[in-house]
Amino acid sequence: MNRVTRRRLIGLAGVSAAGLAAGGVGLGKALEDGAAEDTVPFYGPVQSGITTPAQDRLHFASFDVATTSRRELRDVMRAWTEASARMCAGRTAGPANATGALPPDDTGEALGLTPARLTVTFGFGPTLFDDRFGLASKRPAALIDLPPFAGDSLQAERSGGDIAVQACADDPQVAFHAVRNLARIGRGVVYMRWSQLGFGRTSSTSRAQDTPRNLMGFKDGTNNIKLEDDDALRRFVWVGDGDDPAWMRNGSYLVSRRIRMLIEVWDRATLDDQEQTIGRHKTTGAPLGAAREFDAVHADALPVDSHVRLAKTDARILRRGYSFTDGVDDRLGQLDAGLFFLAFQRDPRTQFVPLQRRLAQNDALNEYISHTGSAIFAVPPGAPAPGRFVGDGLL
Amino acid sequence: MNRVTRRRLIGLAGVSAAGLAAGGVGLGKALEDGAAEDTVPFYGPVQSGITTPAQDRLHFASFDVATTSRRELRDVMRAWTEASARMCAGRTAGPANATGALPPDDTGEALGLTPARLTVTFGFGPTLFDDRFGLASKRPAALIDLPPFAGDSLQAERSGGDIAVQACADDPQVAFHAVRNLARIGRGVVYMRWSQLGFGRTSSTSRAQDTPRNLMGFKDGTNNIKLEDDDALRRFVWVGDGDDPAWMRNGSYLVSRRIRMLIEVWDRATLDDQEQTIGRHKTTGAPLGAAREFDAVHADALPVDSHVRLAKTDARILRRGYSFTDGVDDRLGQLDAGLFFLAFQRDPRTQFVPLQRRLAQNDALNEYISHTGSAIFAVPPGAPAPGRFVGDGLL
Repeated sequence: MNRVTRRRLIGLAGVSAAGLAAGGVGLGKALEDGAAEDTVPFYGPVQSGITTPAQDRLHFASFDVATTSRRELRDVMRAWTEASARMCAGRTAGPANATGALPPDDTGEALGLTPARLTVTFGFGPTLFDDRFGLASKRPAALIDLPPFAGDSLQAERSGGDIAVQACADDPQVAFHAVRNLARIGRGVVYMRWSQLGFGRTSSTSRAQDTPRNLMGFKDGTNNIKLEDDDALRRFVWVGDGDDPAWMRNGSYLVSRRIRMLIEVWDRATLDDQEQTIGRHKTTGAPLGAAREFDAVHADALPVDSHVRLAKTDARILRRGYSFTDGVDDRLGQLDAGLFFLAFQRDPRTQFVPLQRRLAQNDALNEYISHTGSAIFAVPPGAPAPGRFVGDGLL
Repeated sequence: MNRVTRRRLIGLAGVSAAGLAAGGVGLGKALEDGAAEDTVPFYGPVQSGITTPAQDRLHFASFDVATTSRRELRDVMRAWTEASARMCAGRTAGPANATGALPPDDTGEALGLTPARLTVTFGFGPTLFDDRFGLASKRPAALIDLPPFAGDSLQAERSGGDIAVQACADDPQVAFHAVRNLARIGRGVVYMRWSQLGFGRTSSTSRAQDTPRNLMGFKDGTNNIKLEDDDALRRFVWVGDGDDPAWMRNGSYLVSRRIRMLIEVWDRATLDDQEQTIGRHKTTGAPLGAAREFDAVHADALPVDSHVRLAKTDARILRRGYSFTDGVDDRLGQLDAGLFFLAFQRDPRTQFVPLQRRLAQNDALNEYISHTGSAIFAVPPGAPAPGRFVGDGLL
């Protein structure tokens, strides 16, 4: 329990040195521990929260911009960058107020919590490139409007948006705190269009992580791109030096899909049916007919409509999804739960779109799922150092 | 990371002894670790999940009963008891299937996770005592229909219910898994009326725990009843030997209130306003005018309409609430977030009702909150040992 906490780190008014000492941890010691164990650097050539080993919890929010002033939009992105860098370091969103006569510059619910490996990742939706801000000529060709897919049941109030904020942390209160404070800072210029809480990661993005299970009870993302896969990251995730537009280099493209699982139907399916549908053994995660999770997938040996067979492709994506539940959806008493799918890629036109087209048409899993939300965002490169902000190459 | 996991514990088909050894943990060792560190016993004279040191995450569900057969209802409570005892011990909800030709007896998403201090706590709502099951004469007088309170904005689809299931765990996927499997087991007899995910505890129920912060950024529940307070538990939480009905002795009464916080309004209030509203300093949690969190509250020195002054009463309750967010509530872009209030008590007529009446009429906090859901449940004593089930004294 020697992790740095915000309270210890910032020494807010009212917390004396004696109080810190009484906590059993010196400030210097705490700082070291925190930095080593629990903190992901915010500044860098690429944004964090993409190849960062997937944290356990997610709060995702999509915002629309209410102004038509590019300057105001730029000011929000600058303020969001600074506040995010502070929060990822375990500090408050803004400096502590000198006076009680103003609203606090931090909402306070993360005081005393660790940084919990918080990352905040920003993306820009296609609608940001309409005629409001004069950005139409800068819209990347890869930032397409996603086409309709067979079986889509998309809800407008869970889809689209001008700006995405993906906050991941090992503590959900830390992720919530980040989104809530960004919403507070942006008030009047941006407003939240939709948000999604994810309670459990369904992907690993590092070889050091176990493969988690999704709400179908199966291991998900065994063959995901991992941060150790330099070649695959270059080929499939990061926008390269030769790719246009220049402001997107070292960026990526994010597709989000809210995939509701028809839990009650799935739970009545036999184990054989479930395994034939997925193409893996449920307990071990091994491909059908194999013994171990990481045994090679021989697609030809799997059922033609199994999910793993259809999802295996030469154009890979980096998945970073989370399980969600949003209560009971209607009077039928069915849980509104499933997978909030997040995937990063270099070009959705050759990666997500053909993949999802194939799945939407043939996947045996379609009997048990329904896509209820959809969005796409251009994720710009990172802010390389303080003074720069995320998106400054565009705005 | 030597904690027991379900996979290691139960040795499901397909996981060989070699596989266990490869995990670096012998089975015997894993069992010891799990039992010691991460497991709360299910069986006992009182139900767990009341004085259990509050776990970090919550999944709460309210069910209605679809049958009029008391036998079927009893069978569900027996099956729920057995499955809960298994899951709290880190096992699957049911024994592993011998055949793939049946639906699995566990949905699988908690395989590989630790028990995470899971507790499952059951309660019976007033509607269970209508004319369906012949239980009207057994309804406790203390299980009142809650009266309306000033400012209520209750939604029927977030209120009431025949049976409550409170699943608390340090891992939200473990809590979700418990509720989901109980829903699966009860299908056809009970159906889920509403459910609520809580992402962060807002109460401590042990002196060993720090006081957490709610989404207003204030420490909440500093003077909560703690499991170490034997006298207070006897006076204010447990139904006593002289209380009627006999089947409720060693039980308690649970009131749940979904309290939405008007986050955007609160975040624009000055720090002074916030502190005057609550009656405590935000950073330290100390009563206004005092220096430390646990300094005595001198109610007369606080603003007359401050929350802490009004909530200080001789009839105490044991709070066990959680922060929630359920996305954006409408086109205004406001977060639907707040406090899912849970309070256990010996008699709501003399504890929650007069307290809430006073708060609803006078609390300065009312400007910033709205009660959107409400329920009350009789929480029977625990199942003392295998073979017994929760509620067998009633059913």
